[in-house]
Amino acid sequence: MRAPVNYCQVCGTEMIDREAFGQVRRACPACGYIHFNDPKVAAVVFVEQDGRVLLVRRAMDPERGKWGLPAGFIDDGEDPVEAAAREVYEETSLRVRITGLTDVRGDASGIGASIIIMYTAEVLGGVAQARDDADAIWWYVAGDPLPELAFESTHRMLADWLARHSGRHR
Amino acid sequence: MRAPVNYCQVCGTEMIDREAFGQVRRACPACGYIHFNDPKVAAVVFVEQDGRVLLVRRAMDPERGKWGLPAGFIDDGEDPVEAAAREVYEETSLRVRITGLTDVRGDASGIGASIIIMYTAEVLGGVAQARDDADAIWWYVAGDPLPELAFESTHRMLADWLARHSGRHR
Repeated sequence: MRAPVNYCQVCGTEMIDREAFGQVRRACPACGYIHFNDPKVAAVVFVEQDGRVLLVRRAMDPERGKWGLPAGFIDDGEDPVEAAAREVYEETSLRVRITGLTDVRGDASGIGASIIIMYTAEVLGGVAQARDDADAIWWYVAGDPLPELAFESTHRMLADWLARHSGRHR
Repeated sequence: MRAPVNYCQVCGTEMIDREAFGQVRRACPACGYIHFNDPKVAAVVFVEQDGRVLLVRRAMDPERGKWGLPAGFIDDGEDPVEAAAREVYEETSLRVRITGLTDVRGDASGIGASIIIMYTAEVLGGVAQARDDADAIWWYVAGDPLPELAFESTHRMLADWLARHSGRHR
């Protein structure tokens, strides 16, 4: 959900629609400011250990009580790899090292991001403990029944992980 | 360069600084709207053919007249892979298929993006012809002297491509 762009953030004038850079965008008739909707970008992390992957239970709506992967939005100017490690730490108290980039996906639904960057990580240290947006953690073992997952995107991402994981042991 | 957030885009009230979601952000004291600076995300494409990679000469400032890779910003809601192929088409008239994701980087300087997503691509069709933000194209062959490149980030990205490319022929 994007907030409407009714007023110019620079000068406070009411915005209008105007063709700019290939599409109709909100623009200010007074100061010329053009509003661009930049994508919301999330980093999602597969923290892997001995064939297991770390799931976190969501402590907040939407999808409170369901399980997902450690994830969060990347702020402007933040390095994506650092943001990914930070999110894991905030939700699980684990210090991790990002070991790989697995995919980048557009995602119109799901966790509210329009771009999802997926990383793998290994644990460097810390004791796993749910915090922040998470209220429980679970080392999921490939082959075990899946818990109730938050968001369709988590299903798809975990399916990819399971496919990669089973591939390693073929 | 980000435009200042002086007024609430929703209700036009003057914004204030307020702690929200882990940092001080611009917020509206009237309607509660909080402003998030989402990252500007660029897709950059290594269009590869017979050991060559496609460079484009910039027709616009900044760095007009210098060479770079086909690239552009991803709008909110746009699929990153489709955006990457679209940028190549707009600048070169070539229809390409994205063949791989090579890296995601934070970039505080360079082309103005804070996140750069790098893809490789192969040509499906079309006749290469500079358009839009580009006024010339060049199939660069590994080992040839480099032209004057736009932005420090182009140097780094091309160096990575050259490293990968030479690796293939070892």
